[in-house]
Amino acid sequence: MYLSPLLEQLIDALRCLPGVGPKTAQRMAFQLLERCRDKGKLLAKILQHAMENIHHCQSCRAFSETAFCRLCTSSQRDHSLLCIVESPADIAAIEQMGHYHGLYFALMGHLSPLDGIGPEELGIPHLMPILLRGVVKEVIIATNPTVEGIATAHYISELIKPCAIKVTRIAHGVPLGGELEYIDSGTLAHAFAGREEFV
Amino acid sequence: MYLSPLLEQLIDALRCLPGVGPKTAQRMAFQLLERCRDKGKLLAKILQHAMENIHHCQSCRAFSETAFCRLCTSSQRDHSLLCIVESPADIAAIEQMGHYHGLYFALMGHLSPLDGIGPEELGIPHLMPILLRGVVKEVIIATNPTVEGIATAHYISELIKPCAIKVTRIAHGVPLGGELEYIDSGTLAHAFAGREEFV
Repeated sequence: MYLSPLLEQLIDALRCLPGVGPKTAQRMAFQLLERCRDKGKLLAKILQHAMENIHHCQSCRAFSETAFCRLCTSSQRDHSLLCIVESPADIAAIEQMGHYHGLYFALMGHLSPLDGIGPEELGIPHLMPILLRGVVKEVIIATNPTVEGIATAHYISELIKPCAIKVTRIAHGVPLGGELEYIDSGTLAHAFAGREEFV
Repeated sequence: MYLSPLLEQLIDALRCLPGVGPKTAQRMAFQLLERCRDKGKLLAKILQHAMENIHHCQSCRAFSETAFCRLCTSSQRDHSLLCIVESPADIAAIEQMGHYHGLYFALMGHLSPLDGIGPEELGIPHLMPILLRGVVKEVIIATNPTVEGIATAHYISELIKPCAIKVTRIAHGVPLGGELEYIDSGTLAHAFAGREEFV
């Protein structure tokens, strides 16, 4: 090996980042050392701090370094709406849309009995007290439209039914800009079944 | 903003890595938090350590946490050959080739008077004592075949001439697997000028 042991360790450690292979890791290491050591040190400090201090919000289970996250404590949000998603990345996508002003609940996964992921692992016992508080009027289920995501959505909707809370799920259909010719038949079937009156 | 302040800082700090935009940084942050906190902590530790302790080898100027790097102190390498490259990434590429067993000298850039990069910044004053020691018999110049790289090569070759050391440069021409139809005329001109007898 021609690299110094510490440099090898750095390149190896950078590979824990998603989408970073040996070549990219090497380029990252060289660039940090050549051009931005200060930024590298700052990244190291923040990374250490974040890994140790960011936990799950006690209400919505999204990431937060405080007990309750910014959204859950905001008075600007509509606390009567609760959107259930699989991951914090889904919250990011919905927030980027900018049309939803309610709260969230992040399952941090989906039901997958074979992998040992049951309702307990998804924090569903945490969800029930939130719903029973009587503030939430509508639950919008926005799990991914995969087999596991749909199964999770069904499970949750069955669970909420006795609470007398309106349960909806986001529409599945042809995405804007999509061409019918290239859409899979499952999506097309959903689009037909969920057709709306033309106004 | 819907993200916690520390999470925002982390996403922002990850963007110092080359090729990492806001979306990739967000994906990296979520993945580290969701799935590999231990690896994230390890990365933070090694990164901190590397940024503080990796300096330039006192002989070849490549990165090393020791005063002299592994290659410069190796008895397995041919100390009579010295290859001059622009960056440590070039050393990595040549080492990967596996056919070169001499030593290196990394300029860490190329001559660029407009950017204030002169011979001093490229460590050329460090290069001369190495050559004057009398061990080096051949200098192979392997700067990039760009305008600045070629100018740097010329400057160095002129400098070495009085030392009575053989100076060569790596061949420029049509790359293996390349098609003449798609090769730029500058490269093609080099390939013709540097033609070899067919044996």
